[in-house]
Amino acid sequence: MSPSNYRLTKIPEMTIRRLSIYTRCLLQLEEDGVRTISSQELAERFNLNSAQVRKDLAYFGEFGVRGIGYYVSGLKAELQRILGLDREWPVALVGLGNLGSALFHYKGFSRQGFRIAVVFDDDPAKIGREIGGVPIVSTRDLAREVKTRAIQIAVLAVPADGAQAVTDALVAAGIKAVLNFAPARLRIPDSARLKNVDLSIELETLSFYLAQGPR
Amino acid sequence: MSPSNYRLTKIPEMTIRRLSIYTRCLLQLEEDGVRTISSQELAERFNLNSAQVRKDLAYFGEFGVRGIGYYVSGLKAELQRILGLDREWPVALVGLGNLGSALFHYKGFSRQGFRIAVVFDDDPAKIGREIGGVPIVSTRDLAREVKTRAIQIAVLAVPADGAQAVTDALVAAGIKAVLNFAPARLRIPDSARLKNVDLSIELETLSFYLAQGPR
Repeated sequence: MSPSNYRLTKIPEMTIRRLSIYTRCLLQLEEDGVRTISSQELAERFNLNSAQVRKDLAYFGEFGVRGIGYYVSGLKAELQRILGLDREWPVALVGLGNLGSALFHYKGFSRQGFRIAVVFDDDPAKIGREIGGVPIVSTRDLAREVKTRAIQIAVLAVPADGAQAVTDALVAAGIKAVLNFAPARLRIPDSARLKNVDLSIELETLSFYLAQGPR
Repeated sequence: MSPSNYRLTKIPEMTIRRLSIYTRCLLQLEEDGVRTISSQELAERFNLNSAQVRKDLAYFGEFGVRGIGYYVSGLKAELQRILGLDREWPVALVGLGNLGSALFHYKGFSRQGFRIAVVFDDDPAKIGREIGGVPIVSTRDLAREVKTRAIQIAVLAVPADGAQAVTDALVAAGIKAVLNFAPARLRIPDSARLKNVDLSIELETLSFYLAQGPR
């Protein structure tokens, strides 16, 4: 099934998010030497909902084989292709403070094919240097660097008050997707996608359970 | 409706996650001076699914008023109570590297009532000092500090290879919830909850849309 066969607007964002989770589960199964698995086994092993797994996958095609279930490696490769993880994405990191540095060193990005190709910062002490072989460039040269390197994805780790101006510059330079860590409500034109990461939501899921008292 | 009236095990974790999002929407509406809103208006304004909103809220009670919709401040306060955000939670931060430092300064935590009360690190150059008025304590003194301060929530920002040992020590000391940023698969006993933050999942949602080609 080619990408044009499924209707993007009908696919819930949570389904996309779960595809990432399924891909991780399949990678682990592959490591463990498991070759085929049913949706029930997959659900039990990773604490998922088997009906949800089938429904999510159904947006993209027929992956199960009657009497066998899913071929672990095959389904993993399909999901990676759907998620765009079958290629390398050069990424621009904007802001090299504590959070930016932590994100630069975050292993999970490169493992999934997201390679930080350039880092932008305003600090004269950092500009012109390198971090892990990656150039640190002045935010003023953002348009040139993004275009030259044909970068489509940016990770934003700047203070809230500068975040909108940087976003505008990124989009003007041709960036199509922004992952925003700045605690700011950003506007982005329809030509690009914005995803805000709110780390406190994760803590709130935990406090919910604590607030209910002992298990 | 008291917490004991709803059956915890039946509530999907994604519902809890969405309650956090609804709370943020309601906070914004309150700031904007909106007093009542229907589930349809709420959904349209924040790009939510109105049936989903009603279904999520239904787990916890009847919040809508016929012909009026929801009272913004009242619903916000109810959701905050359900999420445990009507109180302050002392939090232990373990690891004060780049990521730990970024998390320490992350405004979103304190805004929702999560107050970092103590920081644990192994670096002798940091131990005994303070950061923003919060003591930096040796990880060896973890048990004593967690018990003395009656801390139930820990945020883990240590390297992957030490993460399991720290988790075991935290749980032994009485920690009930761990938010893990370490790229490690951790085991936790049933007496506690673990939530792993995988930042690359957020990037994958974006690469999915990019992989489908131009909008």
